[in-house]
Amino acid sequence: MPDIQRLNTDEDGFDAALDRLLAWEEGTDDRVEGIVRDILTDVRTRGDTAVVEQTNRLDRRDAATMADLELPAERLQRALEALPSAQRQALETAAERIRGYHRHQCQESWQYTEADGTVLGQQVTPMDRAGLYVPGGKAAYPSSVLMNALPAKVAGVGELVMVVPAPDGELNDLVLAAAAVAGVDRVFTLGGAQAVAALAYGTETVPAVDKIVGPGNIFVATAKRMVFGTVGIDMIAGPSEILVVCDGETDPEWVAVDLFSQAEHDEDAQAILVCPDAAYLDRVAEAMDRLLPTMGRETIIRSSLAARGALIQCRDLDDAAAVINRVAPEHLELSVAEPEALAAKVRHAGAIFLGRYTSESLGDYCAGPNHVLPTSRTARFSSPLGVYDFQKRSSLIGCSAAGAAALGPTAAALADGEGLGAHAEAARRRLGTGDHG
Amino acid sequence: MPDIQRLNTDEDGFDAALDRLLAWEEGTDDRVEGIVRDILTDVRTRGDTAVVEQTNRLDRRDAATMADLELPAERLQRALEALPSAQRQALETAAERIRGYHRHQCQESWQYTEADGTVLGQQVTPMDRAGLYVPGGKAAYPSSVLMNALPAKVAGVGELVMVVPAPDGELNDLVLAAAAVAGVDRVFTLGGAQAVAALAYGTETVPAVDKIVGPGNIFVATAKRMVFGTVGIDMIAGPSEILVVCDGETDPEWVAVDLFSQAEHDEDAQAILVCPDAAYLDRVAEAMDRLLPTMGRETIIRSSLAARGALIQCRDLDDAAAVINRVAPEHLELSVAEPEALAAKVRHAGAIFLGRYTSESLGDYCAGPNHVLPTSRTARFSSPLGVYDFQKRSSLIGCSAAGAAALGPTAAALADGEGLGAHAEAARRRLGTGDHG
Repeated sequence: MPDIQRLNTDEDGFDAALDRLLAWEEGTDDRVEGIVRDILTDVRTRGDTAVVEQTNRLDRRDAATMADLELPAERLQRALEALPSAQRQALETAAERIRGYHRHQCQESWQYTEADGTVLGQQVTPMDRAGLYVPGGKAAYPSSVLMNALPAKVAGVGELVMVVPAPDGELNDLVLAAAAVAGVDRVFTLGGAQAVAALAYGTETVPAVDKIVGPGNIFVATAKRMVFGTVGIDMIAGPSEILVVCDGETDPEWVAVDLFSQAEHDEDAQAILVCPDAAYLDRVAEAMDRLLPTMGRETIIRSSLAARGALIQCRDLDDAAAVINRVAPEHLELSVAEPEALAAKVRHAGAIFLGRYTSESLGDYCAGPNHVLPTSRTARFSSPLGVYDFQKRSSLIGCSAAGAAALGPTAAALADGEGLGAHAEAARRRLGTGDHG
Repeated sequence: MPDIQRLNTDEDGFDAALDRLLAWEEGTDDRVEGIVRDILTDVRTRGDTAVVEQTNRLDRRDAATMADLELPAERLQRALEALPSAQRQALETAAERIRGYHRHQCQESWQYTEADGTVLGQQVTPMDRAGLYVPGGKAAYPSSVLMNALPAKVAGVGELVMVVPAPDGELNDLVLAAAAVAGVDRVFTLGGAQAVAALAYGTETVPAVDKIVGPGNIFVATAKRMVFGTVGIDMIAGPSEILVVCDGETDPEWVAVDLFSQAEHDEDAQAILVCPDAAYLDRVAEAMDRLLPTMGRETIIRSSLAARGALIQCRDLDDAAAVINRVAPEHLELSVAEPEALAAKVRHAGAIFLGRYTSESLGDYCAGPNHVLPTSRTARFSSPLGVYDFQKRSSLIGCSAAGAAALGPTAAALADGEGLGAHAEAARRRLGTGDHG
């Protein structure tokens, strides 16, 4: 049997055990904060010169100027054309599906007119420019490029600027190909806090953006936190998680492999199975045992299952729903006969995979929905990355003369109550019906 | 003439002058950070005991237990009933209009079914519980209670917990009355970092919330930044600002008072007028000079106009639109003959007040739209507080057997490209059409 914790919702101490299982504290690191603060200040002050120096030093590059660190569009196109056709086809199919799904998320401006002619509403506009951070090295995921870039493009963002580190000059051609497919406008081979700083403040060469999205290491995450306010940022992601709820009727090997596909990300990833049938939990454990040696990333899978995995026996599917809402999982698989009925009881989850055929991996790559999802229980208050993250709203308020006369006394009374006399006066001046145009 | 800067978009150095005018750096303060970090840890560790101790010490209270710091619903109702009827009427009218407007912002779940039976969409749900921070003392604004609480109630948030400090036991009855009108569920007389900590982590008595909204001093803002991730937070607000664009045809006194109504907030508030007509700018300056002595908050108005105000001459309204989009103002008044045409050119603004009759103060209190708006150029990437800030989305992905078979090869090819074998295997296992239920 694989080394994985077994729990039962009926046991004494289950709540505390679940809390321990879910506990995850993103470390704050004073040393990292100090380093990042210095880099941000340096880039803000010295612009291109600082970015080139930092990049040469940290990524072992020998750029003379910033121009050496920008990739021309032809370089991306060449990476795309060099791909085996099956891989190119897969990228393009995924992109088309992701685009199609995200078009459903576009928010439109709206307004209504009241009886006295007063107009109220909101005007929705895309951001001017967005920055996309793409990690280099071992975690270079072309699917991430699609998932971060396409919602911005669908939203109508004017310019999308990607940064990706090229340590020792090395680049991942699949990542560049994905950028070509997604229509990224400019690419700089920059990484770390210096890349975040360049995007947030702008330099002579790198244009300042309005929002920065995309995953990164602790230096990148710390830099994003620090520039928040100057620019928008997406959520800082914790380790990836899946909660599978099964009624005990799905092929145990399917469920075992679904748990593996979460656990294989890294040692901190979390895979949890909840089922009312103890014998089924045993069958999944047996399937895991049998299949683990066939997995390329067996060692990582074993580590994360042992450290953070769990097989949880529950009373019934209502009890499972209670566990779901406690966990607020990033990924939730409902491998049950009537997934829609159970989904209706779910209050918190990043993405809900309905039914036995919907493996998380289909959603990770190409079903259409975004794979950038709220982790570490943040699904209680946040949402998948979407088109709405690249749009913003301006309130619209247009009072007719009659509307201003109708609202004025209320506004003036409240302003007086707050001791704000000029506010009251501004409202009172519009009470008359004379022509002040 | 009042002490206020004059600029001209045609002057050399205008861009730099505008940058200096807009410059605003929210100070980070290591001392404050240290104090707040200690308070957060204390509350997280010792719960009620810590919150009661901190509150007794910092707000000079003598509570024995947390129960002494909770206000019963009757207390709020009593405050409402004790109001002069005009004031109560104004609160209730404002609340009804704010509710009506915000109902237009409710987002609905959506889904669509593809030809092969695969279902895709998003399920929209309200947050379980939200926390509302309300400042005590000099900046006790009942309108803020309505603007923060009502979107949460319209969203369907299960429980709304308000905290408001009562230094020396003193409370603002208008604030309590507003809480009654807004339907706030529980009120604790807590403030500062200890109140934020109680809401974020929960104590024996104060329930943990999912998101904290509302303005506060630097201790509150710092605490909110630090608990972000454990809970959601709204934007950290900078000083309030208005940009008025006038074609030179509005009564100069109206515009002068509108500028005052921003400047009267505090010394850091910013009021800017942009107009193509230099003579009109003179007329507004004269009106300001004439009206300033009649203003209750004359001293504050003079300070903020001198420190951060400006009268800017532009070439024409297209040039004004360029200034607007550089400034990305929190409040934008378009006091022109055809405000809709100009609004269509606005890419960044928190709220747009259309036409000569729409004073900002009507929107601040009772027109309906929210007065919690993005400040300090953050309208480039963020939006007014709204119902959408209290709802979140879960992606829905339900693959039919045929859908899983169709998507599987694409997912597997991309997973293989990323070296994630279990992801590929999970997709491939669903390629068959056998009955795995």
